[in-house]
Amino acid sequence: MIIKDEIWGTIEFDDFEKRIIDTPDFQRLRRIKQMSFTNLVYPGANHTRFEHSLGTAHLSGLISERLGLDDDTKKKVKLYGLLHDIGHTAFSHEGEDVVSRLIGDHESLGEKRMKSGPLADVLRENYKPQEILELSKKKEGQIVETDIGADRMDYLKRDALNTGVAYGVIDIDRIIHTLALEDEELVIAKGGLEAAESLLVARFMMFSAVYLHHTVRIATAMLGRAITYSIDDDAVDAKDFASLTDDDAMNAMKRSKKAKPYVDGLIERTLFKEVLSAQNNKSGRKMAEVAASRIRQQFSCEAIVDLPSPIFKPIDFKVKTGDGTKPIMELSELVSSLKSSEERRMKVLVLVPPEQRDKAKLFYENSSNLNQ
Amino acid sequence: MIIKDEIWGTIEFDDFEKRIIDTPDFQRLRRIKQMSFTNLVYPGANHTRFEHSLGTAHLSGLISERLGLDDDTKKKVKLYGLLHDIGHTAFSHEGEDVVSRLIGDHESLGEKRMKSGPLADVLRENYKPQEILELSKKKEGQIVETDIGADRMDYLKRDALNTGVAYGVIDIDRIIHTLALEDEELVIAKGGLEAAESLLVARFMMFSAVYLHHTVRIATAMLGRAITYSIDDDAVDAKDFASLTDDDAMNAMKRSKKAKPYVDGLIERTLFKEVLSAQNNKSGRKMAEVAASRIRQQFSCEAIVDLPSPIFKPIDFKVKTGDGTKPIMELSELVSSLKSSEERRMKVLVLVPPEQRDKAKLFYENSSNLNQ
Amino acid sequence: MIIKDEIWGTIEFDDFEKRIIDTPDFQRLRRIKQMSFTNLVYPGANHTRFEHSLGTAHLSGLISERLGLDDDTKKKVKLYGLLHDIGHTAFSHEGEDVVSRLIGDHESLGEKRMKSGPLADVLRENYKPQEILELSKKKEGQIVETDIGADRMDYLKRDALNTGVAYGVIDIDRIIHTLALEDEELVIAKGGLEAAESLLVARFMMFSAVYLHHTVRIATAMLGRAITYSIDDDAVDAKDFASLTDDDAMNAMKRSKKAKPYVDGLIERTLFKEVLSAQNNKSGRKMAEVAASRIRQQFSCEAIVDLPSPIFKPIDFKVKTGDGTKPIMELSELVSSLKSSEERRMKVLVLVPPEQRDKAKLFYENSSNLNQ
Amino acid sequence: MIIKDEIWGTIEFDDFEKRIIDTPDFQRLRRIKQMSFTNLVYPGANHTRFEHSLGTAHLSGLISERLGLDDDTKKKVKLYGLLHDIGHTAFSHEGEDVVSRLIGDHESLGEKRMKSGPLADVLRENYKPQEILELSKKKEGQIVETDIGADRMDYLKRDALNTGVAYGVIDIDRIIHTLALEDEELVIAKGGLEAAESLLVARFMMFSAVYLHHTVRIATAMLGRAITYSIDDDAVDAKDFASLTDDDAMNAMKRSKKAKPYVDGLIERTLFKEVLSAQNNKSGRKMAEVAASRIRQQFSCEAIVDLPSPIFKPIDFKVKTGDGTKPIMELSELVSSLKSSEERRMKVLVLVPPEQRDKAKLFYENSSNLNQ
Repeated sequence: MIIKDEIWGTIEFDDFEKRIIDTPDFQRLRRIKQMSFTNLVYPGANHTRFEHSLGTAHLSGLISERLGLDDDTKKKVKLYGLLHDIGHTAFSHEGEDVVSRLIGDHESLGEKRMKSGPLADVLRENYKPQEILELSKKKEGQIVETDIGADRMDYLKRDALNTGVAYGVIDIDRIIHTLALEDEELVIAKGGLEAAESLLVARFMMFSAVYLHHTVRIATAMLGRAITYSIDDDAVDAKDFASLTDDDAMNAMKRSKKAKPYVDGLIERTLFKEVLSAQNNKSGRKMAEVAASRIRQQFSCEAIVDLPSPIFKPIDFKVKTGDGTKPIMELSELVSSLKSSEERRMKVLVLVPPEQRDKAKLFYENSSNLNQ
Repeated sequence: MIIKDEIWGTIEFDDFEKRIIDTPDFQRLRRIKQMSFTNLVYPGANHTRFEHSLGTAHLSGLISERLGLDDDTKKKVKLYGLLHDIGHTAFSHEGEDVVSRLIGDHESLGEKRMKSGPLADVLRENYKPQEILELSKKKEGQIVETDIGADRMDYLKRDALNTGVAYGVIDIDRIIHTLALEDEELVIAKGGLEAAESLLVARFMMFSAVYLHHTVRIATAMLGRAITYSIDDDAVDAKDFASLTDDDAMNAMKRSKKAKPYVDGLIERTLFKEVLSAQNNKSGRKMAEVAASRIRQQFSCEAIVDLPSPIFKPIDFKVKTGDGTKPIMELSELVSSLKSSEERRMKVLVLVPPEQRDKAKLFYENSSNLNQ
Repeated sequence: MIIKDEIWGTIEFDDFEKRIIDTPDFQRLRRIKQMSFTNLVYPGANHTRFEHSLGTAHLSGLISERLGLDDDTKKKVKLYGLLHDIGHTAFSHEGEDVVSRLIGDHESLGEKRMKSGPLADVLRENYKPQEILELSKKKEGQIVETDIGADRMDYLKRDALNTGVAYGVIDIDRIIHTLALEDEELVIAKGGLEAAESLLVARFMMFSAVYLHHTVRIATAMLGRAITYSIDDDAVDAKDFASLTDDDAMNAMKRSKKAKPYVDGLIERTLFKEVLSAQNNKSGRKMAEVAASRIRQQFSCEAIVDLPSPIFKPIDFKVKTGDGTKPIMELSELVSSLKSSEERRMKVLVLVPPEQRDKAKLFYENSSNLNQ
Repeated sequence: MIIKDEIWGTIEFDDFEKRIIDTPDFQRLRRIKQMSFTNLVYPGANHTRFEHSLGTAHLSGLISERLGLDDDTKKKVKLYGLLHDIGHTAFSHEGEDVVSRLIGDHESLGEKRMKSGPLADVLRENYKPQEILELSKKKEGQIVETDIGADRMDYLKRDALNTGVAYGVIDIDRIIHTLALEDEELVIAKGGLEAAESLLVARFMMFSAVYLHHTVRIATAMLGRAITYSIDDDAVDAKDFASLTDDDAMNAMKRSKKAKPYVDGLIERTLFKEVLSAQNNKSGRKMAEVAASRIRQQFSCEAIVDLPSPIFKPIDFKVKTGDGTKPIMELSELVSSLKSSEERRMKVLVLVPPEQRDKAKLFYENSSNLNQ
């Protein structure tokens, strides 16, 4: 099967892969947006986990080819790339965060889908599901999952194209040409250092401009409430939630009286507004809690304290130099500056319904003046 | 308001335009895909009428600026671009074709939304709706609507980017620099001829590779049945249909027993298959009708005869030469070849449910041999 | 050796290919511009035969790989692509046209360089030159040379990028995926028809907007005179000319008193101007000759009659359909319209020195009025 | 005059600007490559100061427009952008570094060309040269010259396109939309911080991958010797050198016996090779000097100690925040990491003629072992 991808051009899947793709489990990914409600800020961000999964598989295959893996391993790595997001709930990470608190993380959902159901039925014709799943603990699995792996490269390029944010430009060619499988892990050769730095900076820039954009965070906070409230209300069962698509979930949540205003706000883009943003440290969080609590009391309205999620995890892959492999953090001041840069940009927000913003802000500013 | 668009980069709207965009009527366009079920073939094609409307407005504004229109006209033309698709039903053209047969075309739906409701309320603060609507009859309206206008240029570039089909590359700059408003109409200067040709060829190529792709046509035919059957069944009222989003409509149609198999087929991508394709002329259509009728009889299954829609309308804008303005068809053999090229590519298809295809095809081939 | 190419990204050459590239014969291509004086109109057009040769080799290798050729043939085809322009004189085609009239065409110059000298010395380590040269008569050689081959695809993309002309966008992926070697020749499968059409249209567009641009033709005509005059004058020997680079040739031609004004005009961009352009048919050519002759008489100045070269040769590759292979001209109205479109655009020009233009034009217009 | 630029598309110049461009002083920039011998490593890097000057003028005009400058100032800023490199010698910075040591820096050459000669004659019709030159001391001049100004943005994008290095992608739109003229200087609004960071990181990446590429440095070091030697030899006069084009200079330098081997090496790409690279600190520089001196003694060959030039100057523009303007170095850990990152990458090199490399390296390694 030949597919035209907006990032990678003409990409190919063999008959077995095609049959995996044709299962309802996989087709469901067509209806889960990659970036959830980011399209409320970047209107082009309507791409889905389906496209991303195809792209990740393609790139995993390319890297495996380049690394000279044997045919059987190549096929497994490509499948692992294809299925790496199969356990996603609606709304990608946003849904997961809530659901995983209640019923376990997305890896276990993915595991389930690979072990029983229509997808598993096809998979078992050629493999034991465990053969694919165990790649997560092997160095070959890093082809998909590491910081310079296929998953990251695909989503950075795809998110950049669809948001129109020009930061996500990466020299994929160069990275693919310089990756190497050492005894224990996937590393990059010294000659790929600039390309790897560039990828990590691109990721940081995307976080800064897109993933941590305040309006995106507001939409996410509203969505989080909508999911939680609708499960509390029994409008939807947490277990069932895991199988819904974005739109199924929106419809289900509307049935919850408590969740409905949030759902409607997301649909009509009448979003909560920011009253206060503070550094994400002890005193900043304290200040936010106090402010929110006073606003709630004063106006009998909701005031959400939104803590940033530490989505930008530590970067830990290694570079192969003349003196053995070394963590990239040791070799690149640029990369090691990213962690602290990110922290400085992750603010605690206090959010209120739009119609309350002006008076809440005035009240907060006056009361904080009083306090000084 | 500044928006980052995947095609045009940073684009701007003033406060009044922002308030138009923030109405539920306009926000609804976020949930109507530009290319309906084309994403079943080109997985990246998830962009919406919302983005396209913003882009068309932006480009309409640019062209008006370039043509030196007065400020008031510029604003009206930009609004006209912004609202040109406001009347769209779910599934863009596919929904419209069915609904317009029952309740009138999308222009009249658009007219309604501009004359009453939340959008109209904002619009009336600055304009009489008629001032915007009447642009469709004025030469300034051609900035949005002509073959080399803002609507076409936006959708060609946007569809090309999101499908990954490289044909839709157009020298927008050049076209904008060479458009001119003559007494009666919008024309292009001689120096823009290649750019205009290139745009028309790009459009033809997109039609050939994307819009007329057989699988896209199959999905569209199934969708047409689903809409028709669900209205027949009273699962949804034709009038109400006009206000639904893509997903609302899918859900509504599922409630129709007759429509449900088509809806499910579209969701799980188990699509009808082609038994026969023939030239779209009298004898081809006859052959298709006969074949379909025999297949229905023989297998008691559905067999759809799908006629191509003449979507590629005659091209009629003019080029300004040393000898006065002339139709581009007269000046360019390339452009005049497009009409006949297109006709040759528009086939009549006979389609059957996937599980019937092999035997239906065998039956058809045998029976047509018998006839010879 | 890994090279970063502006079109194809990271491209690779093995040690033998690197040694070929490192010969002075090949390095000389760095100093021959791909598009000669086209940069007087499109300032970015400074790319060279060197880059183009590397790109053509890369693409020839890709196509050979895709077609499943054996290793030895693959290597030879890649070398054939690498060396296809090794015989070029200064100023690419413009120089050749003059020189070949005097000492034979560029194929024979290329043959010489592959048979003796530093390049031949390296080549002979692994091959008999004839093994590479004879590919021009074999179907595998079409991978480099046919209308949808590596040479064309490389130069169209490269010329488009460097001129900034957006027409040259081609779905290379698709073409590579649909090329096939039949018994006698390289053909394209039906599924590649749009992509092939698109390439041919792109080529036509580039001809129309760039290669046939009147100012480009004027510079070429001046260059032709400069070369001819400097050889007439014995400022440079035709045989020696064949080995010069662009700049060597400019310096050599300056030494000819007759050629110098043309060389200076090209350097300072004081170009001849057009007095008249006419259809390239018998009566048009006659009219041009008469006008030029009268202008020469009247003003004792030079008046060049510039005939267009039929650079856009007939297109003759085949498409593989259900009914056997067929010429693309039979299957595509679009492609068959290109030949006549091109003819209509190829004008005969009458050119005079810039300071003579206004009076020559006035004189011509008056005298032609008298004639009517 | 309308020009098609490979970066900015269709760009326009008025008649006065066109006449400036048409002077021999400006046309000369066509024959000075932007990146000198970088094309020995990145074969596409053949673009010139001519294109770059046009692009800088265009972008300077766009920014001035956006900042709402009055018409007269806009025109002057655009001219200032157009002429900012008019004083360049052959080989851009590489030539300048040598020549300026002997006869003064390129600003003064530029000043001369703007004060007398054919360019000055045209310029004086509308301006006193001083009106343009004094912009270098005014805040409006920063539109061209600051770290986020038109010159930098143009060359980063142009160098990236022509080298094929993907790092130079910058959100120009965003920067233009967020630049602001404060009382004293050009600053960027807070909302442009990511875009400015991205530009500075792109610049760093280009330095790291391209401008500081060891082979590029080797070619530059050879060129430096060739220029110095040919002036020493009186093959060319330092003053005359300032007016030569790249190719004139190559020809002139060939006449110097001492310079010729370097010139030939650059032409045939037989470059010096690296024996040693060391940190650019006191001990590294000492080590390099000692090694070079021993190699010279041992093999009676040249050994060049090449010190990196501190081309990446301190970054000092300001960002406008809620609390007044602040240096970007204070607000961005990312940007402040660039200076130290760069230092770490700037090595001292010891270079020898290619045929000496293997033995020199062996000798050096052995002798340095003895020393330990």
